[in-house]
Amino acid sequence: ATSTSNAVFSQNKVLTIDTMNPNVKNVEYAVRGPIVQRAVQIEKELREGVKKPFTEVIKANIGDAHAMGQQPITFFRQVLALCSYPELLKDNMFPEDAKSRARRILQACGGSSLGAYSASQGIDCVRQDVARYIERRDGGVPCDPDNVYLTSGASDGIVTMLKLLVCGEGASKTGVMISIPQYPLYSAALAELGAVQVNYYLNEEKCWSMDLSELERSLAEARKHCNPKVLCIINPGNPTGQVQSRQCIEDVIRFAAKEHLFLMADEVYQDNVYAEGCQFHSFKKVLFELGPQYSNTVELVSFHSTSKCYMGECGFRGGYMEVINMDPEVKAQLIKLVSVRLCPAVPGQALMDLVVNSPQPGEPSYTTFMKERTTTLSLLAEKAKLTEEILNTVPGITCNPVQGAMYSFPNISLPQKAIKEAKALGQAPDMFYCMKMLEETGICLVPGSGFGQKDGTYHFRMTILPPTDKLKLLLAKVKEFHQKFTRQYS
Amino acid sequence: ATSTSNAVFSQNKVLTIDTMNPNVKNVEYAVRGPIVQRAVQIEKELREGVKKPFTEVIKANIGDAHAMGQQPITFFRQVLALCSYPELLKDNMFPEDAKSRARRILQACGGSSLGAYSASQGIDCVRQDVARYIERRDGGVPCDPDNVYLTSGASDGIVTMLKLLVCGEGASKTGVMISIPQYPLYSAALAELGAVQVNYYLNEEKCWSMDLSELERSLAEARKHCNPKVLCIINPGNPTGQVQSRQCIEDVIRFAAKEHLFLMADEVYQDNVYAEGCQFHSFKKVLFELGPQYSNTVELVSFHSTSKCYMGECGFRGGYMEVINMDPEVKAQLIKLVSVRLCPAVPGQALMDLVVNSPQPGEPSYTTFMKERTTTLSLLAEKAKLTEEILNTVPGITCNPVQGAMYSFPNISLPQKAIKEAKALGQAPDMFYCMKMLEETGICLVPGSGFGQKDGTYHFRMTILPPTDKLKLLLAKVKEFHQKFTRQYS
Ligand SMILES: Cc1ncc(COP(=O)(O)O)c(C=O)c1O
Ligand SMILES: Cc1ncc(COP(=O)(O)O)c(C=O)c1O
Repeated sequence: ATSTSNAVFSQNKVLTIDTMNPNVKNVEYAVRGPIVQRAVQIEKELREGVKKPFTEVIKANIGDAHAMGQQPITFFRQVLALCSYPELLKDNMFPEDAKSRARRILQACGGSSLGAYSASQGIDCVRQDVARYIERRDGGVPCDPDNVYLTSGASDGIVTMLKLLVCGEGASKTGVMISIPQYPLYSAALAELGAVQVNYYLNEEKCWSMDLSELERSLAEARKHCNPKVLCIINPGNPTGQVQSRQCIEDVIRFAAKEHLFLMADEVYQDNVYAEGCQFHSFKKVLFELGPQYSNTVELVSFHSTSKCYMGECGFRGGYMEVINMDPEVKAQLIKLVSVRLCPAVPGQALMDLVVNSPQPGEPSYTTFMKERTTTLSLLAEKAKLTEEILNTVPGITCNPVQGAMYSFPNISLPQKAIKEAKALGQAPDMFYCMKMLEETGICLVPGSGFGQKDGTYHFRMTILPPTDKLKLLLAKVKEFHQKFTRQYS
Repeated sequence: ATSTSNAVFSQNKVLTIDTMNPNVKNVEYAVRGPIVQRAVQIEKELREGVKKPFTEVIKANIGDAHAMGQQPITFFRQVLALCSYPELLKDNMFPEDAKSRARRILQACGGSSLGAYSASQGIDCVRQDVARYIERRDGGVPCDPDNVYLTSGASDGIVTMLKLLVCGEGASKTGVMISIPQYPLYSAALAELGAVQVNYYLNEEKCWSMDLSELERSLAEARKHCNPKVLCIINPGNPTGQVQSRQCIEDVIRFAAKEHLFLMADEVYQDNVYAEGCQFHSFKKVLFELGPQYSNTVELVSFHSTSKCYMGECGFRGGYMEVINMDPEVKAQLIKLVSVRLCPAVPGQALMDLVVNSPQPGEPSYTTFMKERTTTLSLLAEKAKLTEEILNTVPGITCNPVQGAMYSFPNISLPQKAIKEAKALGQAPDMFYCMKMLEETGICLVPGSGFGQKDGTYHFRMTILPPTDKLKLLLAKVKEFHQKFTRQYS
């Protein structure tokens, strides 16, 4: 009824669902989709006194650490306060290293104010600090600050790079290879740009690893109808929580070199590695270890962000990208493109600087900083283990180890009757399942269909971010719900 | 030579100037173009001790108030410091109203932290405060917070709206009417989206006003080859500094209604009105005064920002847009679209909140706030007058009154010999002029060709932002340069 009356009402409008940009219409974004909208409604109903079989909504739908109670790093926030209100520099309440960091950042700002636009590529000294951080991280592989671009979160960088790369029509349209399951920013950006999404499937049986044969299959298939130019990898993985092995990364780089693909490495979870035997290997480091034949030719961009790792500072929208082997003419075009929006938010740039230039041994804030950082990362490791273990006790749920990032993506077996009922409602079966879970338990998860999955398999994504007690409660409720759901539809 | 060797080098690259998105290649952005890049180089040369006929570069190329020494509003920065580092709430050094604003903002943030993602449309209570601000500004015309979207600066809102509106190919491609001269974000966004830029000329003889007949000419012309759907207005104007009369706005609204055009009103300079007899009239207010026939039908979006007015807080990238009469289905699409990038930077949202919910009479910070605000705006008014007066004393320079915004856009007559020499170099004549001025005086202006102008006329844009002393020096140097330049090429 609503849609009919809207249609009548819209007839006189310039901008309607029928006249708007069709690419935008094709965009989907499950992380903030119908489940989350319903969760917000339910919270409102609870506040208004509506009776429910639960008293609060527990959100495990989005990698938003502070929203789940994680505390910010004291040092970062001290420096941000000092930069915001430099009068505080006169005060004795802040440690000297916080003050000197703040002075250094302010000196690099126009008029010594966070309120001035920065260079569009980002503040010079921040880009230099990022370069030194990357060099340390990668055991001395050189990094040129001119290759570093500060961004408004990694999202901004990813969309900007795809925008540069996408062109053509019909069979020569740019194809972009993304993992399935994927973080839906990628599919959304590709839809918006009208590019061809080329799926390659992660191997769930082998802990969501990448198979060379699957990459080959996917590429060969894509070449029949588009021009695949880009290969995107998320490592550590969202939504799947795997950490790729060094061997795998090497294989991917050789594959990209051989097949003439531009590599986009989303490495925003680079500090989030928990499983024993796992380690973060940056694409750049492995590229350089493969020797000049690779390191002088393969085009690579890597993304990082203030939103994840131990910081969890999503709201500041800080991030950077490093481009490697990018054509100098294209770099000039990239700088021009980012100039149009003037600059990334300066407080986010300042925060990115603190992340790559954190307190050092001997500085007054070092001990507290390290304690806070370690506590957060150990808690995450503990919750990763807990999640995997409890989920695997549920008959009908199979969960790979959460090796890294902030998510588990368990496989759920759904009874035929449930699948039928969902399809009759025009819903993906795991959407039907998650919506029912939300209504009955107050737990907000995202259905696997929002990220993509092999046909006939069903999953959900849940974050490991709730505080341990709440996480245990959540997992117990998921267990109970799954068993009840299975009985109900068998 | 460079371009040949690059071309050879590029042959093996995936991403080259020839394979990249051609729409991005078509983007131009003069405000940060070649002149500004050269200015940055010259600053570096000065630091390295290279001898020049001047000792510092004076930048009058961009509306970046803090970079030119304008001080931030104390209250705003106090609240931002409190929000960044809530430990400070325990301190006695901050006024109570700053603390209560900070508490209110933090309560509205996930986990009471600026570090949590907000709702994609923006924090609820900030949108409510924006709505109340708009109602006060517009003498009670109602504003629904659901129509308010927080953005990363106005730039973000403008690009997002254009993205929604643009579609079609060939003769049915969306045409977007923009003023000439324009703020080049518009032409850049249209190039990127592959839309048709439809120019209408402002009337320089009548102080850059909008002529109905010119709008009609432009639209009729455009209808021959595209589908014009959108009319953009910047008021107060950038780069032209005019403030449109109420009558003019009424005419534009009637025109949009009659011609079925979607209105985009860029009102980021709404507090920057200096000239006697001039007043800011919001498009929304005038729309509602025209009665329900208009206020129930004409689709309008208005943009605001923390970057301009008396705040000048560009680096925080705060802003909002209000949509009026937008189709509900399109609104849902808009929310989905903004979800993909998660949310605008939260410190910028907090700052936007402070702007629309500033200290009130009776609150401890009120007096200081009003003093700071008034001082900044009076200084700007003084500098607007000064700029106009001094420029008009120069033979060959004609300058309209700077009624509002932060710019003057004087007409400069250039000798034929200079025009010829510029053309021989493949440069726009006013680019040639501005580049010479930069090299000889250290003054950085933007040539009129970067904004668009009537064929055969030449201009430059200069901001009125430098401190009064420096502005006087700058104007004296411009005068001297112009006279010398005229002599040299006569
Ligand atoms: C894999 C991945 N990439 C990018 C992002 C974007 O993060 P942001 O834009 O906050 O940096 C996220 C956020 O969850 C993510 O999981
Ligand atoms: C007319 C106009 N609109 C929009 C903007 C964008 O400003 P921001 O993105 O900083 O809000 C500017 C900046 O100068 C402007 O002059």
